[in-house]
Amino acid sequence: MIIANKNYSSWSMRPWLAAKAAGIGFEEQIIWLRQPQTSANIKTISAAGKVPILIDGDILMHESIAILEYFAEIAPELWPQDREARAHARSIGAEMHAGFVPLRKSCPMNIKRRPQAIALDTETLASVERVVDLFVDCRARFGAGGDFLFGARFNNADAMFAPVVNRLHAYDIKVPASVRTYMDAVMATPMWREWEAAALDEAEIIADIDDVR
Amino acid sequence: MIIANKNYSSWSMRPWLAAKAAGIGFEEQIIWLRQPQTSANIKTISAAGKVPILIDGDILMHESIAILEYFAEIAPELWPQDREARAHARSIGAEMHAGFVPLRKSCPMNIKRRPQAIALDTETLASVERVVDLFVDCRARFGAGGDFLFGARFNNADAMFAPVVNRLHAYDIKVPASVRTYMDAVMATPMWREWEAAALDEAEIIADIDDVR
Ligand SMILES: N[C@@H](CCC(=O)N[C@@H](CS)C(=O)NCC(=O)O)C(=O)O
Ligand SMILES: N[C@@H](CCC(=O)N[C@@H](CS)C(=O)NCC(=O)O)C(=O)O
Repeated sequence: MIIANKNYSSWSMRPWLAAKAAGIGFEEQIIWLRQPQTSANIKTISAAGKVPILIDGDILMHESIAILEYFAEIAPELWPQDREARAHARSIGAEMHAGFVPLRKSCPMNIKRRPQAIALDTETLASVERVVDLFVDCRARFGAGGDFLFGARFNNADAMFAPVVNRLHAYDIKVPASVRTYMDAVMATPMWREWEAAALDEAEIIADIDDVR
Repeated sequence: MIIANKNYSSWSMRPWLAAKAAGIGFEEQIIWLRQPQTSANIKTISAAGKVPILIDGDILMHESIAILEYFAEIAPELWPQDREARAHARSIGAEMHAGFVPLRKSCPMNIKRRPQAIALDTETLASVERVVDLFVDCRARFGAGGDFLFGARFNNADAMFAPVVNRLHAYDIKVPASVRTYMDAVMATPMWREWEAAALDEAEIIADIDDVR
Protein backbone atom coordinates (compact mmCIF):
# COMPACT_ATOMS: atom_id res chain seq x y z
CA MET A 1 0.00 0.00 0.00
CA ILE A 2 1.47 3.30 -1.06
CA ILE A 3 0.37 6.13 1.20
CA ALA A 4 1.49 9.62 2.20
CA ASN A 5 2.32 11.31 5.51
CA LYS A 6 0.34 9.69 8.32
CA ASN A 7 -0.03 13.07 9.99
CA TYR A 8 -1.73 14.72 7.04
CA SER A 9 -2.95 12.24 4.44
CA SER A 10 -6.62 11.65 5.13
CA TRP A 11 -7.20 9.55 2.02
CA SER A 12 -4.31 7.24 2.91
CA MET A 13 -5.71 6.64 6.37
CA ARG A 14 -8.94 5.09 5.14
CA PRO A 15 -7.77 1.86 3.45
CA TRP A 16 -4.90 1.55 5.93
CA LEU A 17 -7.32 1.42 8.89
CA ALA A 18 -9.74 -0.88 7.04
CA ALA A 19 -7.01 -3.37 6.16
CA LYS A 20 -5.78 -3.43 9.75
CA ALA A 21 -9.35 -3.78 11.05
CA ALA A 22 -9.88 -6.80 8.82
CA GLY A 23 -6.49 -8.33 9.53
CA ILE A 24 -5.40 -8.05 5.90
CA GLY A 25 -1.60 -8.02 5.89
CA PHE A 26 0.26 -5.49 3.75
CA GLU A 27 3.53 -3.63 3.46
CA GLU A 28 3.49 0.13 3.28
CA GLN A 29 5.56 2.65 1.41
CA ILE A 30 5.32 6.38 2.12
CA ILE A 31 5.61 9.12 -0.48
CA TRP A 32 5.95 12.43 1.33
CA LEU A 33 3.51 15.13 0.23
CA ARG A 34 4.52 18.59 -0.99
CA GLN A 35 8.03 17.70 -2.09
CA PRO A 36 9.20 18.89 -5.50
CA GLN A 37 8.97 15.33 -6.84
CA THR A 38 5.80 14.16 -5.05
CA SER A 39 3.45 14.25 -7.99
CA ALA A 40 6.03 12.95 -10.46
CA ASN A 41 6.90 10.08 -8.13
CA ILE A 42 3.27 9.08 -7.69
CA LYS A 43 2.71 9.23 -11.45
CA THR A 44 5.53 6.76 -12.10
CA ILE A 45 3.34 4.26 -10.21
CA SER A 46 -0.21 5.38 -11.06
CA ALA A 47 -1.21 7.74 -13.85
CA ALA A 48 -3.98 9.22 -11.72
CA GLY A 49 -1.25 10.81 -9.58
CA LYS A 50 -2.81 10.30 -6.15
CA VAL A 51 -2.30 8.05 -3.16
CA PRO A 52 -3.46 5.72 -1.69
CA ILE A 53 -2.44 3.11 -4.23
CA LEU A 54 -2.73 -0.62 -3.63
CA ILE A 55 -0.58 -3.15 -5.44
CA ASP A 56 -1.54 -6.79 -5.03
CA GLY A 57 0.34 -8.99 -7.48
CA ASP A 58 -0.78 -7.94 -10.96
CA ILE A 59 -3.48 -5.70 -9.56
CA LEU A 60 -2.83 -1.99 -9.16
CA MET A 61 -5.62 0.11 -7.73
CA HIS A 62 -6.10 3.76 -6.90
CA GLU A 63 -8.87 5.62 -5.02
CA SER A 64 -9.58 4.99 -1.35
CA ILE A 65 -13.17 3.88 -1.81
CA ALA A 66 -12.31 1.43 -4.60
CA ILE A 67 -9.60 -0.10 -2.41
CA LEU A 68 -12.16 -0.49 0.39
CA GLU A 69 -14.45 -2.41 -1.98
CA TYR A 70 -11.49 -4.58 -2.95
CA PHE A 71 -10.78 -5.34 0.70
CA ALA A 72 -14.47 -6.14 1.25
CA GLU A 73 -14.22 -8.84 -1.42
CA ILE A 74 -11.47 -10.41 0.71
CA ALA A 75 -13.09 -9.61 4.07
CA PRO A 76 -16.87 -9.24 3.57
CA GLU A 77 -17.31 -8.12 7.19
CA LEU A 78 -15.95 -4.72 6.09
CA TRP A 79 -19.50 -4.01 4.96
CA PRO A 80 -22.55 -4.77 7.11
CA GLN A 81 -24.10 -8.18 6.41
CA ASP A 82 -27.64 -6.80 6.34
CA ARG A 83 -28.59 -5.55 2.89
CA GLU A 84 -30.26 -2.34 4.04
CA ALA A 85 -27.39 -1.49 6.38
CA ARG A 86 -24.90 -2.22 3.61
CA ALA A 87 -26.77 0.04 1.18
CA HIS A 88 -26.64 2.81 3.77
CA ALA A 89 -22.97 2.23 4.56
CA ARG A 90 -22.12 2.53 0.88
CA SER A 91 -24.26 5.67 0.50
CA ILE A 92 -22.61 7.53 3.35
CA GLY A 93 -19.14 6.26 2.40
CA ALA A 94 -19.67 7.62 -1.10
CA GLU A 95 -21.06 10.88 0.26
CA MET A 96 -17.79 11.26 2.15
CA HIS A 97 -15.73 10.35 -0.92
CA ALA A 98 -17.12 13.21 -3.01
CA GLY A 99 -18.40 15.58 -0.34
CA PHE A 100 -17.79 17.68 2.74
CA VAL A 101 -15.43 19.84 0.73
CA PRO A 102 -15.71 22.94 2.97
CA LEU A 103 -14.83 20.91 6.07
CA ARG A 104 -11.96 19.20 4.23
CA LYS A 105 -10.58 22.57 3.12
CA SER A 106 -11.03 24.56 6.33
CA CYS A 107 -10.01 21.82 8.74
CA PRO A 108 -7.34 19.65 7.13
CA MET A 109 -6.53 16.42 8.92
CA ASN A 110 -3.69 16.90 11.36
CA ILE A 111 -3.10 14.07 13.81
CA LYS A 112 -0.48 15.96 15.84
CA ARG A 113 -2.62 19.05 16.36
CA ARG A 114 -3.63 19.69 19.95
CA PRO A 115 -7.38 20.32 20.01
CA GLN A 116 -7.90 23.99 19.35
CA ALA A 117 -10.96 25.70 17.91
CA ILE A 118 -10.96 27.99 14.89
CA ALA A 119 -13.71 30.21 13.48
CA LEU A 120 -15.76 28.21 10.97
CA ASP A 121 -17.48 29.81 7.98
CA THR A 122 -21.11 29.10 7.06
CA GLU A 123 -20.30 26.42 4.54
CA THR A 124 -18.02 24.56 6.93
CA LEU A 125 -20.69 24.76 9.60
CA ALA A 126 -23.18 23.25 7.15
CA SER A 127 -20.73 20.40 6.46
CA VAL A 128 -20.34 19.84 10.21
CA GLU A 129 -24.09 19.87 10.72
CA ARG A 130 -24.59 17.29 7.97
CA VAL A 131 -21.89 14.97 9.25
CA VAL A 132 -23.16 15.17 12.83
CA ASP A 133 -26.72 14.38 11.64
CA LEU A 134 -25.37 11.53 9.57
CA PHE A 135 -23.52 10.03 12.56
CA VAL A 136 -26.49 10.41 14.91
CA ASP A 137 -28.93 8.98 12.37
CA CYS A 138 -26.69 6.04 11.45
CA ARG A 139 -25.97 5.15 15.07
CA ALA A 140 -29.70 5.34 15.88
CA ARG A 141 -30.74 3.13 12.97
CA PHE A 142 -27.87 0.70 12.67
CA GLY A 143 -25.56 1.15 15.67
CA ALA A 144 -27.14 -1.23 18.20
CA GLY A 145 -24.70 -3.51 19.96
CA GLY A 146 -21.61 -1.34 19.78
CA ASP A 147 -20.12 2.12 19.44
CA PHE A 148 -19.32 2.16 15.72
CA LEU A 149 -21.58 3.43 12.94
CA PHE A 150 -22.92 -0.07 12.33
CA GLY A 151 -22.57 -1.45 15.84
CA ALA A 152 -19.86 -3.64 17.24
CA ARG A 153 -17.56 -3.78 14.24
CA PHE A 154 -15.40 -1.01 12.76
CA ASN A 155 -16.12 -1.25 9.03
CA ASN A 156 -15.48 0.54 5.73
CA ALA A 157 -17.92 3.34 6.61
CA ASP A 158 -16.02 4.08 9.83
CA ALA A 159 -12.80 4.02 7.83
CA MET A 160 -14.21 6.56 5.36
CA PHE A 161 -15.13 8.92 8.23
CA ALA A 162 -12.05 8.38 10.41
CA PRO A 163 -10.31 11.53 9.14
CA VAL A 164 -13.49 13.48 9.94
CA VAL A 165 -13.24 12.15 13.48
CA ASN A 166 -9.77 13.71 13.62
CA ARG A 167 -11.07 17.00 12.24
CA LEU A 168 -13.92 17.26 14.75
CA HIS A 169 -11.42 16.43 17.50
CA ALA A 170 -8.45 18.54 16.39
CA TYR A 171 -10.45 21.69 15.68
CA ASP A 172 -12.41 21.16 18.89
CA ILE A 173 -15.77 21.34 17.14
CA LYS A 174 -18.84 21.10 19.38
CA VAL A 175 -20.68 17.82 18.86
CA PRO A 176 -23.45 15.99 20.75
CA ALA A 177 -22.30 13.56 23.45
CA SER A 178 -23.28 10.54 21.35
CA VAL A 179 -20.98 11.70 18.57
CA ARG A 180 -18.16 12.20 21.07
CA THR A 181 -18.72 8.61 22.20
CA TYR A 182 -18.40 7.47 18.61
CA MET A 183 -15.24 9.53 18.10
CA ASP A 184 -13.69 8.11 21.25
CA ALA A 185 -14.48 4.57 20.11
CA VAL A 186 -12.75 5.16 16.77
CA MET A 187 -9.77 6.84 18.41
CA ALA A 188 -9.39 3.95 20.85
CA THR A 189 -9.08 1.22 18.20
CA PRO A 190 -5.68 -0.46 17.98
CA MET A 191 -5.31 0.56 14.35
CA TRP A 192 -6.04 4.22 15.07
CA ARG A 193 -3.46 4.13 17.88
CA GLU A 194 -0.89 2.54 15.62
CA TRP A 195 -1.47 5.14 12.89
CA GLU A 196 -1.40 7.97 15.46
CA ALA A 197 1.86 6.80 17.03
CA ALA A 198 3.51 6.71 13.61
CA ALA A 199 2.12 10.16 12.75
CA LEU A 200 3.52 11.60 15.98
CA ASP A 201 6.93 10.24 15.02
CA GLU A 202 7.00 11.92 11.63
CA ALA A 203 9.39 14.85 11.26
CA GLU A 204 7.84 16.22 8.06
CA ILE A 205 5.97 19.49 8.47
CA ILE A 206 3.41 21.06 6.16
CA ALA A 207 3.43 24.59 7.51
CA ASP A 208 0.18 25.88 6.07
CA ILE A 209 -1.71 22.95 7.60
CA ASP A 210 -0.02 23.34 10.98
CA ASP A 211 -0.72 27.07 10.84
CA VAL A 212 -4.52 26.80 10.56
CA ARG A 213 -5.79 29.03 13.35
CA MET B 1 -35.27 6.25 -8.81
CA ILE B 2 -35.42 9.94 -8.10
CA ILE B 3 -33.41 11.93 -10.60
CA ALA B 4 -33.20 15.46 -11.98
CA ASN B 5 -33.41 17.00 -15.46
CA LYS B 6 -32.22 14.51 -18.05
CA ASN B 7 -30.66 17.34 -20.04
CA TYR B 8 -28.41 18.53 -17.24
CA SER B 9 -28.13 16.06 -14.38
CA SER B 10 -24.96 14.11 -14.94
CA TRP B 11 -25.14 12.25 -11.61
CA SER B 12 -28.68 11.08 -12.33
CA MET B 13 -27.66 9.68 -15.70
CA ARG B 14 -25.19 7.18 -14.25
CA PRO B 15 -27.43 4.79 -12.28
CA TRP B 16 -30.26 5.29 -14.77
CA LEU B 17 -28.11 3.99 -17.64
CA ALA B 18 -26.67 1.16 -15.54
CA ALA B 19 -30.12 -0.05 -14.47
CA LYS B 20 -31.34 -0.01 -18.06
CA ALA B 21 -28.16 -1.76 -19.25
CA ALA B 22 -28.73 -4.54 -16.72
CA GLY B 23 -32.47 -4.78 -17.34
CA ILE B 24 -33.30 -3.77 -13.77
CA GLY B 25 -36.84 -2.34 -13.83
CA PHE B 26 -37.60 0.89 -12.00
CA GLU B 27 -39.95 3.83 -11.94
CA GLU B 28 -38.54 7.32 -12.14
CA GLN B 29 -39.51 10.61 -10.59
CA ILE B 30 -37.93 13.88 -11.65
CA ILE B 31 -37.15 16.78 -9.34
CA TRP B 32 -36.28 19.79 -11.48
CA LEU B 33 -33.01 21.51 -10.61
CA ARG B 34 -32.67 25.22 -9.77
CA GLN B 35 -36.24 25.79 -8.64
CA PRO B 36 -36.82 27.65 -5.38
CA GLN B 37 -37.89 24.40 -3.70
CA THR B 38 -35.40 21.99 -5.31
CA SER B 39 -33.13 21.51 -2.34
CA ALA B 40 -35.95 21.48 0.21
CA ASN B 41 -37.86 18.91 -1.84
CA ILE B 42 -34.86 16.62 -2.12
CA LYS B 43 -34.21 16.93 1.62
CA THR B 44 -37.72 15.72 2.46
CA ILE B 45 -36.65 12.43 0.87
CA SER B 46 -32.91 12.25 1.67
CA ALA B 47 -31.06 14.35 4.23
CA ALA B 48 -27.98 14.48 2.01
CA GLY B 49 -29.98 16.74 -0.32
CA LYS B 50 -28.78 15.36 -3.65
CA VAL B 51 -30.13 13.18 -6.43
CA PRO B 52 -29.94 10.45 -7.63
CA ILE B 53 -31.79 8.65 -4.86
CA LEU B 54 -32.88 5.03 -5.08
CA ILE B 55 -35.78 3.65 -3.07
CA ASP B 56 -36.23 -0.11 -3.09
CA GLY B 57 -38.74 -1.21 -0.47
CA ASP B 58 -37.25 -0.30 2.91
CA ILE B 59 -33.94 0.64 1.35
CA LEU B 60 -33.20 4.28 0.57
CA MET B 61 -29.87 5.06 -1.01
CA HIS B 62 -28.10 8.17 -2.19
CA GLU B 63 -24.88 8.70 -4.18
CA SER B 64 -24.52 7.50 -7.76
CA ILE B 65 -21.57 5.19 -7.12
CA ALA B 66 -23.22 3.53 -4.13
CA ILE B 67 -26.34 2.87 -6.21
CA LEU B 68 -24.14 1.32 -8.91
CA GLU B 69 -22.68 -1.07 -6.32
CA TYR B 70 -26.21 -1.91 -5.19
CA PHE B 71 -27.20 -2.71 -8.76
CA ALA B 72 -24.09 -4.85 -9.16
CA GLU B 73 -25.25 -6.99 -6.24
CA ILE B 74 -28.43 -7.67 -8.26
CA ALA B 75 -26.69 -7.83 -11.66
CA PRO B 76 -23.03 -8.82 -11.11
CA GLU B 77 -22.27 -8.30 -14.83
CA LEU B 78 -22.27 -4.56 -14.10
CA TRP B 79 -18.69 -5.09 -12.97
CA PRO B 80 -16.18 -7.12 -14.97
CA GLN B 81 -15.97 -10.75 -13.92
CA ASP B 82 -12.17 -10.77 -13.91
CA ARG B 83 -10.76 -9.63 -10.58
CA GLU B 84 -8.06 -7.39 -12.02
CA ALA B 85 -10.46 -5.78 -14.48
CA ARG B 86 -13.00 -5.27 -11.70
CA ALA B 87 -10.38 -3.62 -9.47
CA HIS B 88 -9.52 -1.27 -12.32
CA ALA B 89 -13.18 -0.54 -13.11
CA ARG B 90 -13.80 0.41 -9.50
CA SER B 91 -10.65 2.57 -9.40
CA ILE B 92 -11.55 4.63 -12.46
CA GLY B 93 -15.22 4.80 -11.45
CA ALA B 94 -14.18 6.21 -8.09
CA GLU B 95 -11.70 8.59 -9.74
CA MET B 96 -14.66 9.96 -11.71
CA HIS B 97 -16.84 10.17 -8.62
CA ALA B 98 -14.47 12.51 -6.78
CA GLY B 99 -12.46 13.97 -9.65
CA PHE B 100 -12.32 15.82 -12.95
CA VAL B 101 -13.68 18.89 -11.21
CA PRO B 102 -12.33 21.43 -13.74
CA LEU B 103 -13.95 19.56 -16.64
CA ARG B 104 -17.20 19.22 -14.69
CA LYS B 105 -17.23 22.95 -13.96
CA SER B 106 -16.14 24.31 -17.34
CA CYS B 107 -18.14 21.90 -19.48
CA PRO B 108 -21.38 21.02 -17.70
CA MET B 109 -23.35 18.16 -19.19
CA ASN B 110 -25.88 19.40 -21.71
CA ILE B 111 -27.51 16.76 -23.87
CA LYS B 112 -29.28 19.28 -26.13
CA ARG B 113 -26.17 21.30 -26.92
CA ARG B 114 -25.07 21.14 -30.54
CA PRO B 115 -21.34 20.35 -30.59
CA GLN B 116 -19.51 23.63 -30.29
CA ALA B 117 -16.00 24.22 -28.97
CA ILE B 118 -15.09 26.66 -26.20
CA ALA B 119 -11.71 27.84 -24.97
CA LEU B 120 -10.48 25.48 -22.23
CA ASP B 121 -8.26 26.64 -19.37
CA THR B 122 -5.11 24.75 -18.32
CA GLU B 123 -6.81 22.80 -15.55
CA THR B 124 -9.65 21.68 -17.80
CA LEU B 125 -7.14 20.63 -20.43
CA ALA B 126 -5.34 18.56 -17.78
CA SER B 127 -8.66 16.89 -16.87
CA VAL B 128 -9.28 16.14 -20.55
CA GLU B 129 -5.79 14.75 -20.98
CA ARG B 130 -6.23 12.45 -17.99
CA VAL B 131 -9.61 11.16 -19.09
CA VAL B 132 -8.41 10.54 -22.63
CA ASP B 133 -5.38 8.62 -21.30
CA LEU B 134 -7.65 6.69 -18.98
CA PHE B 135 -9.96 5.68 -21.85
CA VAL B 136 -7.10 4.72 -24.16
CA ASP B 137 -5.30 2.75 -21.44
CA CYS B 138 -8.45 0.94 -20.28
CA ARG B 139 -9.50 0.02 -23.82
CA ALA B 140 -5.98 -1.24 -24.57
CA ARG B 141 -5.77 -3.37 -21.44
CA PHE B 142 -9.33 -4.55 -20.94
CA GLY B 143 -11.36 -3.59 -24.01
CA ALA B 144 -10.82 -6.61 -26.27
CA GLY B 145 -13.96 -8.01 -27.83
CA GLY B 146 -16.03 -4.86 -27.94
CA ASP B 147 -16.13 -1.08 -27.99
CA PHE B 148 -16.79 -0.37 -24.29
CA LEU B 149 -14.19 0.24 -21.60
CA PHE B 150 -14.21 -3.42 -20.63
CA GLY B 151 -15.09 -4.92 -24.00
CA ALA B 152 -18.46 -6.09 -25.22
CA ARG B 153 -20.59 -5.09 -22.27
CA PHE B 154 -21.55 -1.59 -21.10
CA ASN B 155 -20.90 -1.70 -17.36
CA ASN B 156 -20.78 0.53 -14.26
CA ALA B 157 -17.51 2.12 -15.37
CA ASP B 158 -19.05 3.19 -18.68
CA ALA B 159 -22.05 4.51 -16.74
CA MET B 160 -19.75 6.60 -14.53
CA PHE B 161 -18.08 8.14 -17.58
CA ALA B 162 -21.20 8.56 -19.76
CA PRO B 163 -21.64 12.24 -18.84
CA VAL B 164 -17.98 12.79 -19.77
CA VAL B 165 -18.76 11.31 -23.17
CA ASN B 166 -21.42 14.00 -23.53
CA ARG B 167 -18.98 16.70 -22.46
CA LEU B 168 -16.29 15.65 -24.93
CA HIS B 169 -18.96 15.52 -27.64
CA ALA B 170 -20.94 18.67 -26.79
CA TYR B 171 -17.90 20.92 -26.36
CA ASP B 172 -16.33 19.41 -29.48
CA ILE B 173 -13.11 18.51 -27.68
CA LYS B 174 -10.37 16.96 -29.82
CA VAL B 175 -9.86 13.30 -28.95
CA PRO B 176 -7.99 10.41 -30.60
CA ALA B 177 -9.99 8.31 -33.06
CA SER B 178 -10.15 5.36 -30.66
CA VAL B 179 -11.82 7.55 -28.03
CA ARG B 180 -14.30 8.80 -30.63
CA THR B 181 -15.13 5.16 -31.40
CA TYR B 182 -15.76 4.58 -27.71
CA MET B 183 -17.94 7.69 -27.46
CA ASP B 184 -19.96 6.63 -30.49
CA ALA B 185 -20.50 3.18 -28.98
CA VAL B 186 -21.83 4.69 -25.75
CA MET B 187 -24.02 7.18 -27.61
CA ALA B 188 -25.48 4.38 -29.76
CA THR B 189 -26.72 2.24 -26.87
CA PRO B 190 -30.50 1.96 -26.53
CA MET B 191 -30.39 3.40 -23.01
CA TRP B 192 -28.39 6.44 -24.09
CA ARG B 193 -30.88 7.02 -26.94
CA GLU B 194 -33.82 6.73 -24.58
CA TRP B 195 -32.27 9.19 -22.11
CA GLU B 196 -31.35 11.57 -24.94
CA ALA B 197 -34.84 11.53 -26.46
CA ALA B 198 -36.35 12.38 -23.08
CA ALA B 199 -33.78 15.16 -22.53
CA LEU B 200 -34.60 16.68 -25.92
CA ASP B 201 -38.26 16.75 -24.91
CA GLU B 202 -37.65 18.68 -21.69
CA ALA B 203 -38.79 22.30 -21.66
CA GLU B 204 -36.79 23.32 -18.59
CA ILE B 205 -33.86 25.61 -19.28
CA ILE B 206 -30.85 26.38 -17.09
CA ALA B 207 -29.61 29.51 -18.80
CA ASP B 208 -26.08 29.66 -17.43
CA ILE B 209 -25.44 26.11 -18.62
CA ASP B 210 -26.93 26.74 -22.05
CA ASP B 211 -24.91 29.95 -22.27
CA VAL B 212 -21.47 28.34 -21.89
CA ARG B 213 -19.53 29.67 -24.88
N1 LIG C 1 -10.25 10.67 -4.41
C1 LIG C 1 -8.93 10.20 -4.00
C2 LIG C 1 -8.18 11.34 -3.33
C3 LIG C 1 -6.71 11.02 -3.12
C4 LIG C 1 -5.86 12.25 -2.77
O1 LIG C 1 -6.30 13.40 -3.00
N2 LIG C 1 -4.64 12.01 -2.24
C5 LIG C 1 -3.70 13.08 -1.94
C6 LIG C 1 -3.05 12.84 -0.57
S1 LIG C 1 -4.25 12.77 0.75
C7 LIG C 1 -2.56 13.02 -2.95
O2 LIG C 1 -2.19 11.96 -3.43
N3 LIG C 1 -1.95 14.14 -3.32
C8 LIG C 1 -0.82 14.08 -4.22
C9 LIG C 1 -0.34 15.40 -4.64
O3 LIG C 1 -0.91 16.37 -4.11
O4 LIG C 1 0.55 15.48 -5.50
C10 LIG C 1 -9.07 8.99 -3.09
O5 LIG C 1 -10.18 8.78 -2.56
O6 LIG C 1 -8.13 8.20 -2.93
N1 LIG D 1 -21.77 12.79 -5.26
C1 LIG D 1 -23.18 12.82 -5.66
C2 LIG D 1 -23.47 14.08 -6.45
C3 LIG D 1 -24.96 14.31 -6.66
C4 LIG D 1 -25.29 15.72 -7.13
O1 LIG D 1 -24.47 16.66 -7.02
N2 LIG D 1 -26.52 15.89 -7.65
C5 LIG D 1 -27.03 17.19 -8.09
C6 LIG D 1 -27.74 17.07 -9.44
S1 LIG D 1 -26.68 16.44 -10.73
C7 LIG D 1 -28.08 17.66 -7.10
O2 LIG D 1 -28.80 16.85 -6.53
N3 LIG D 1 -28.23 18.95 -6.85
C8 LIG D 1 -29.29 19.40 -5.98
C9 LIG D 1 -29.23 20.84 -5.70
O3 LIG D 1 -28.37 21.48 -6.33
O4 LIG D 1 -30.03 21.33 -4.88
C10 LIG D 1 -23.50 11.54 -6.43
O5 LIG D 1 -22.55 10.90 -6.91
O6 LIG D 1 -24.69 11.15 -6.53
